[in-house]
Amino acid sequence: MQQKHNFGAGPCILAPSVMQQAANAVINWNDSGLSILEVSHRSAAFENVIRKTQLLVRELLNVPNDYSVLFLQGGASTQFAMVPMNFLQKKSRAAYLDTGYFAQKAIKEARLFGEVEIIASSKDKNYAYIPDYSSNDQRVAYLHCTSNNTIEGTEMFEFPGFGIPLVCDMSSDIFSRRINVRDFDLIYAGAQKNMGPAGMTLVIAKNKFLDSVKAEVPAMMDYRVFRDNDSMYNTPPVFSIYVAMLNLLWLKDQGGVEGIEKMNIKKANMLYQEIDRNPLFKGTANVAHRSRMNVTFKAIDEATEKAFLQFAEELGLVGIKGYRTVGGFRASLYNALPIASVEVLVNAMKQFENSRKLEQTLQLA
Amino acid sequence: MQQKHNFGAGPCILAPSVMQQAANAVINWNDSGLSILEVSHRSAAFENVIRKTQLLVRELLNVPNDYSVLFLQGGASTQFAMVPMNFLQKKSRAAYLDTGYFAQKAIKEARLFGEVEIIASSKDKNYAYIPDYSSNDQRVAYLHCTSNNTIEGTEMFEFPGFGIPLVCDMSSDIFSRRINVRDFDLIYAGAQKNMGPAGMTLVIAKNKFLDSVKAEVPAMMDYRVFRDNDSMYNTPPVFSIYVAMLNLLWLKDQGGVEGIEKMNIKKANMLYQEIDRNPLFKGTANVAHRSRMNVTFKAIDEATEKAFLQFAEELGLVGIKGYRTVGGFRASLYNALPIASVEVLVNAMKQFENSRKLEQTLQLA
Repeated sequence: MQQKHNFGAGPCILAPSVMQQAANAVINWNDSGLSILEVSHRSAAFENVIRKTQLLVRELLNVPNDYSVLFLQGGASTQFAMVPMNFLQKKSRAAYLDTGYFAQKAIKEARLFGEVEIIASSKDKNYAYIPDYSSNDQRVAYLHCTSNNTIEGTEMFEFPGFGIPLVCDMSSDIFSRRINVRDFDLIYAGAQKNMGPAGMTLVIAKNKFLDSVKAEVPAMMDYRVFRDNDSMYNTPPVFSIYVAMLNLLWLKDQGGVEGIEKMNIKKANMLYQEIDRNPLFKGTANVAHRSRMNVTFKAIDEATEKAFLQFAEELGLVGIKGYRTVGGFRASLYNALPIASVEVLVNAMKQFENSRKLEQTLQLA
Repeated sequence: MQQKHNFGAGPCILAPSVMQQAANAVINWNDSGLSILEVSHRSAAFENVIRKTQLLVRELLNVPNDYSVLFLQGGASTQFAMVPMNFLQKKSRAAYLDTGYFAQKAIKEARLFGEVEIIASSKDKNYAYIPDYSSNDQRVAYLHCTSNNTIEGTEMFEFPGFGIPLVCDMSSDIFSRRINVRDFDLIYAGAQKNMGPAGMTLVIAKNKFLDSVKAEVPAMMDYRVFRDNDSMYNTPPVFSIYVAMLNLLWLKDQGGVEGIEKMNIKKANMLYQEIDRNPLFKGTANVAHRSRMNVTFKAIDEATEKAFLQFAEELGLVGIKGYRTVGGFRASLYNALPIASVEVLVNAMKQFENSRKLEQTLQLA
């Protein structure tokens, strides 16, 4: 079988050793004679898994003790609503940074619950950059940002909060680089990039921020209910949490977040260098805000785009078509994508350029 | 290794062939060279899975064409809030049937959104029966019931709606017996009993009922958003849906819901007969309302209970301890539990009785 190189934007590649352990557990988990799919979430064995996963998150991201680590469901899209439902009162105001497709979705949901002020936007240039922003309005309930814009290929590298509680959607770059959790009051992330398979959502929140909630919200939308029940108020997504644990153990073996960050920088530089060098391609994001996770680029014209897409697919490169609102290409370089796969893509771009040159020479002859 | 017999209340046993196929797909899905855990939910291959799963639900439960079949996340606990959030306006009223622990949770959430009328309750006898109920108040927004009470071991076998839209939590008995979907306006069920692994929630709803929603709710709490986006508004729980598809294909091979219902009646009768015969045990639920899915029973005294629990565990019987609010035993007989496992339990009860008799004879001698 042809080897595949999965550049998909999520759900995305996980390490082969994680897949193997996950498959084994589906048949017979830790020699228990039971599948991980049929085990009770109230069993001591699974309680150990969820505790261990939480500790791994704390260790890998240096989560301070006055922060809670929670496992929810419903992805970042549910968080778009849960954040304002908990923290935005009617007659109060929240500040949002408008940096792309998903930021817009978050803004839309917040407007159902209170006043939203967009303090900066990069809509004017199709979200190709991270706008500067500042605020000195201390009455704002929170400031919301998106650390990595999966579709537009931009990433935030600084997080000034201006004294306002900072809430951040880190779905597509959490665990890919070091962060200072203290910069944020609440971080949320759909798991299906660098944490594990789809079906789980990570929340890291400052306890003091959670305790400030005055709204009466349903149990499953109340962060404190998850905190008070160790993320087991109801049946959690057992398998997703288990695979996340395996994946975070794998990450630890890679030198943790610090180790993987170095590798991610290397991978991203390698690909951006080729995009900048190769006359057939051009990057779409502002150089200073280029994402290390989702590299977005275009071909010089539509025919070239189509031809390269086909060429790449024939080489086993999967998932490099850009999102429909942006077009072009998107190569996602998540943690588990080996550097060898980036090399295959870079070589494909070079080969494609050479075959073009050859064609032109033949036509001229 | 000792063979295990998993009587757990959920997450619960699935057929070994389903586990095997699921494990294979985690390594290499359908010879694609990709794991089911890394495949894009927007790929044609996964779109085919979600479509097929939906069609299997329709086929197995005879879902009429004017009903939608949706896949959500968050379990029944999220539905406890979503139902009133969508259908219960302030100043309107919903009727609830109070038949146990989970019905109470649903009632609690509904009270956040509007007026709740409990039209019948079996709280007076620790929820050991299904109360009679009736209503002729056509101004009620909906009537909510729980078809199977997992903890208390009771099940509803008739669903009079009295002309009011009927909403039903079927988490623990859906796909275990024939139902007439037309009796209901909305059915919801956490998947982790007879549908698949934890992490997915099934909703079957009459389109006309969905169209009646006037409240403005966030996208992820809006049933119509799931309907309009084929349950793919955001990243769905890919693996849970895939395993549900495998499991529903398995159910089809068992003669569908009609075939499995016959087997479930046989399994339940076998165990209830032994409970009624054996002088060391007694059933806890009213005979007419005994659940076929969760058989609850007690030992004649605490010492016997403790001794039998140990005896059963040594035989590889897993998950028969009753829920803490009820005590005693609970043997869950979900679709995938083989009749052979029920025989092992029944024989254990007989053996236990005989060893007791022998002990007493020896003590008398």
